Amino acid sequence: MSDLIQLLNWRYATKKFDPSKSVPQDKVSQILEAIRLSASSSGLQPYHVLVVTNPAVREQIKVVAWGQGQITDSSHLLVFAAWDNYTAERINAAFDLVNQERGFKNEGWEAYRQQLLAGYPPRDAEVNYQHAARQAYIAVGTALLAAADAGVDATPMEGFDPAKVDEILGLRAQGLRSVVLLPLGYRQPEGDWLVKLKKVRQPLEQFVSRID
Amino acid sequence: MSDLIQLLNWRYATKKFDPSKSVPQDKVSQILEAIRLSASSSGLQPYHVLVVTNPAVREQIKVVAWGQGQITDSSHLLVFAAWDNYTAERINAAFDLVNQERGFKNEGWEAYRQQLLAGYPPRDAEVNYQHAARQAYIAVGTALLAAADAGVDATPMEGFDPAKVDEILGLRAQGLRSVVLLPLGYRQPEGDWLVKLKKVRQPLEQFVSRID
Repeated sequence: MSDLIQLLNWRYATKKFDPSKSVPQDKVSQILEAIRLSASSSGLQPYHVLVVTNPAVREQIKVVAWGQGQITDSSHLLVFAAWDNYTAERINAAFDLVNQERGFKNEGWEAYRQQLLAGYPPRDAEVNYQHAARQAYIAVGTALLAAADAGVDATPMEGFDPAKVDEILGLRAQGLRSVVLLPLGYRQPEGDWLVKLKKVRQPLEQFVSRID
Repeated sequence: MSDLIQLLNWRYATKKFDPSKSVPQDKVSQILEAIRLSASSSGLQPYHVLVVTNPAVREQIKVVAWGQGQITDSSHLLVFAAWDNYTAERINAAFDLVNQERGFKNEGWEAYRQQLLAGYPPRDAEVNYQHAARQAYIAVGTALLAAADAGVDATPMEGFDPAKVDEILGLRAQGLRSVVLLPLGYRQPEGDWLVKLKKVRQPLEQFVSRID
């Protein structure tokens, strides 16, 4: 456990990546596997992850992300893209996969499927998208620890124009909306204003309350 | 890294906690420290964590959470409660804390403070709350790994009436809104329908796309 605390203290929102260094494929795969195993509401995994290495595409994204250098200086740009809506098709696909993998149908599970089918698709698409987007953030939390565990730097970024990123990556046609960017790479300390500064968090007494 | 993947495979949404077992205080503290160190947008940590052990309060919450037994069978119930809005006071407190802890004012950081002060408080409170809530989910991702690392079971739960939980805990008066419940405890395998079933996730080829 102290290791996990060490990882959280080691990581930081890297401001300058070393453009000459690339994250090896096995480490990228480990981070993606951790993301894939992340928890999500009802196990729906209502988002998709894009791994962008293409330099031209990343240049385009940088332009709609306030020119932030991490987009192009990192070696891999992860894009978390949430489902734009919960549809019966998507819910059924998730439940069918569970039945297929477990090799049987569970009555309670099937009743739960019907509950989601009755509850989710009739809701406003925006409500469903917001719910899906939240689940992607659980995976961002996992990814940050998985990256740190692999000695890889990662910067979660919301500072971009989602509609433009959606357009660059053709996401809306796939029923997806960009939510978070996560460049992966290696810090270049000499160009990074944040790397030497103390990590600051609210004191525990202020951040946590106990109801005993 | 394989350890982290093992932790993700070990954990599951525990359906039945053993009410006779309690998570020791040092493990609860480790999980809370991991949550406190989690990343958040602009480092604002726009949420609060309540640790509810009081049995009567947990009984009340259970009633508005479809009677789910984890609420009362676990030994500690964490409640993630997001800021209901971004105010100038909250933003300034976060930036002031950074300056105080680092012992100096940074020009770029002060410009960024002004950018947030100009951008966040005028927005609709609901937009700000949604943004704050997403940050809490990063911490849920951290907490699930920290719990697993401590051998503690944890079940992220959205299945409750947030307005009623807010009322029970007096959250709205504190400018907070409940977002996720996370009971901590130890699994009771004989009463848990899920514990022996295979964890199912979308295949990597479907979940991830590459843009090379």
